[in-house]
Amino acid sequence: MIKYKPAIVVVSAASGTGKTTVINRILEIEHGLFYSVSATTRPKRPNEKNGKDYIFIKRDTFKKWIKEHKLLEWAEVYGEYYGTPKEPIEKALSLGQSVIADLDVNGMKEIKKHYSEDAVSVFLFPPDFDTLIERLKNRGTETESQLKIRIERLKHELANAPLYDYWVLNDSVEHAARRILSILHSMESLSSRLSPFKIHL
Amino acid sequence: MIKYKPAIVVVSAASGTGKTTVINRILEIEHGLFYSVSATTRPKRPNEKNGKDYIFIKRDTFKKWIKEHKLLEWAEVYGEYYGTPKEPIEKALSLGQSVIADLDVNGMKEIKKHYSEDAVSVFLFPPDFDTLIERLKNRGTETESQLKIRIERLKHELANAPLYDYWVLNDSVEHAARRILSILHSMESLSSRLSPFKIHL
Repeated sequence: MIKYKPAIVVVSAASGTGKTTVINRILEIEHGLFYSVSATTRPKRPNEKNGKDYIFIKRDTFKKWIKEHKLLEWAEVYGEYYGTPKEPIEKALSLGQSVIADLDVNGMKEIKKHYSEDAVSVFLFPPDFDTLIERLKNRGTETESQLKIRIERLKHELANAPLYDYWVLNDSVEHAARRILSILHSMESLSSRLSPFKIHL
Repeated sequence: MIKYKPAIVVVSAASGTGKTTVINRILEIEHGLFYSVSATTRPKRPNEKNGKDYIFIKRDTFKKWIKEHKLLEWAEVYGEYYGTPKEPIEKALSLGQSVIADLDVNGMKEIKKHYSEDAVSVFLFPPDFDTLIERLKNRGTETESQLKIRIERLKHELANAPLYDYWVLNDSVEHAARRILSILHSMESLSSRLSPFKIHL
């Protein structure tokens, strides 16, 4: 009768918001969802798994991928490359799988530009600012001036929130995960995205 | 930090889709949700409860309510009046409660006009046309020509689906209820509807 259409949800957050935990919970709840793994040239850390946390590739490969338009978006951060491979997302969508991507504001903008009506953006907010500051302090490595720099960066990151379609509060991992899934499911049901139905009566 | 904003979801469906069962399930899942009870002048049936199924009122009262702008929308169907009282919806919204309303296409249009950015419309589809026809036949009261009339009406009702923001398939009561709730929750999180957040850092 009608068929839902897979969609892409891009999630961003300020550092210390707990985004990774929320995304992991989303993937636990929704088995059919495809997580877009970023490619990077930075060295793998001991706790990371290639293909799960990142696709770790050499600089030459990365540059080749850029040239061959294999990346939907990419950026250089502190001298290392990060990017979103196109083919896995295209494949997931063609199989009817929705996609979740964990990107910064520039990545979000590129995905929204490329997929326009198929992509939706979510900014995840920390439960409150005190918790956020507390988390930064508890990292223990911060001097007073380092903390100041981090707080400035936080303000900068939060200032991007108005660019996102939806706002979700990370008051609990479960609440935030369910609400992001709700946003994705609503996109899958948006009538303007769906094929016209046929009446056989 | 941020606060979700209550929204109104209007649900319509072709006759025989199972809309009432789905809405009852939604109200079971989401206790905080307010169900907009329609007012009517038609006589109460034995299995109906005043204030729950309908608000049963006299014709004079209904006409007074129209004059006093107490109804968000109203219509006359087969000589009886039906309408949506405004005050209970306004009260629910002001208390932070989202609202679900079960209306036909004209009621939906009026609610969307009145609440513009706060209302969202959902058209619920039957699982398939065979089931729908089967249900009509099983009512037993249908002659061949009555069935033809009902099928024409169905076609007419289904033709309104493109006017709705979202399409939901009633493949199972649980699936349909959860998806309508997802649409409501996404509306509550739509950034363009929310108050700007303040950064206290």
